[in-house]
Amino acid sequence: MTNLPIVLASKSRARAAVLTGAGLTFETLDSGVDEDLVKAHLLVENASPKTVAEVLAEKKALAVSATHPAWVIGADQTLEFDGGLYDKVSDLAMAADRLRLMRGRSHKLHSAVVLAHQGVTVWRDCVTAELTMRPFSETFLTRYLEMEGAACLGSVGCYRLEGPGAQLFSRIDGDYFSILGLPLLGLLEHLRTVGVVKR
Amino acid sequence: MTNLPIVLASKSRARAAVLTGAGLTFETLDSGVDEDLVKAHLLVENASPKTVAEVLAEKKALAVSATHPAWVIGADQTLEFDGGLYDKVSDLAMAADRLRLMRGRSHKLHSAVVLAHQGVTVWRDCVTAELTMRPFSETFLTRYLEMEGAACLGSVGCYRLEGPGAQLFSRIDGDYFSILGLPLLGLLEHLRTVGVVKR
Repeated sequence: MTNLPIVLASKSRARAAVLTGAGLTFETLDSGVDEDLVKAHLLVENASPKTVAEVLAEKKALAVSATHPAWVIGADQTLEFDGGLYDKVSDLAMAADRLRLMRGRSHKLHSAVVLAHQGVTVWRDCVTAELTMRPFSETFLTRYLEMEGAACLGSVGCYRLEGPGAQLFSRIDGDYFSILGLPLLGLLEHLRTVGVVKR
Repeated sequence: MTNLPIVLASKSRARAAVLTGAGLTFETLDSGVDEDLVKAHLLVENASPKTVAEVLAEKKALAVSATHPAWVIGADQTLEFDGGLYDKVSDLAMAADRLRLMRGRSHKLHSAVVLAHQGVTVWRDCVTAELTMRPFSETFLTRYLEMEGAACLGSVGCYRLEGPGAQLFSRIDGDYFSILGLPLLGLLEHLRTVGVVKR
């Protein structure tokens, strides 16, 4: 049990870094939500990749909020390519295949955030960014995967924009913080509205 | 004299960090350009803040390129507010005044980049982002300046978006890398075109 007024119900280091960077003090708790199971159920129902991000963000926030009196932030990011949902890959050979599939084409990142309090969703947002990969060579791909190694497996798109992943892209359209994994400005505004972050 | 094929003619740590992050190997050299003098001359000629960024980026690139055989990157970022050019402030009292002036309103960041080779400009780009500050309170401003201290003086807008500066904003529209200080994707594409970065 935490005494801090804000809890982040996410295991993502990138999201924690965005909040810490912004100067917030918070505790990080694992929501315990079985994300793979939730996704499987949603996909059976033909849920869109955007909906999957929204539902997962909410489930994480509500799961922690059920037992914690804090303002709980749930967040999730999904990758949509060719209309479908893409999950993280587990090794570098799969990463190479994924990147070959996406090169020369655009994909979307849906970044959802939900704020829950007293077991109820009190605010939500979902922001979509569109990223276009250039038609990089096989030689580049090999060198990229050597440079990045397992670091690229932490992202569903197999890239870190703050790393060599930048070299994969020809175009990036989207909100600065959402690309980092959290639509921060709307969240901060709502945290100010409810008084947990000072105006 | 360097043997590396890329030189960054800029003292900005943020710009060097963007290039390093992207996986480029390069040397950083001070261009020796008297930026204040160049700005003063340009302002007498009623140059726009965007033009000032473009001219400064080019002067830095050409100055280093005159004596270095490498591909030289010159870059500059200017802040436009109310149609005018705003320079860095030198102490926290001035930072407080600057932030009071900008709060509740929008400003622009013009990020210019020039690539020079053999003393000639071979490519240029300038990307503009628009940022809107929320009407933050005096209490917030005081606490913000305490949190940031001298760190906020390194930016012309008195903020670091990767720090508590995020709490100053209600809206940010612009290219991810340009906001960090360097329109990276276009630059990478041109470095690939000339063969100094692999495809």
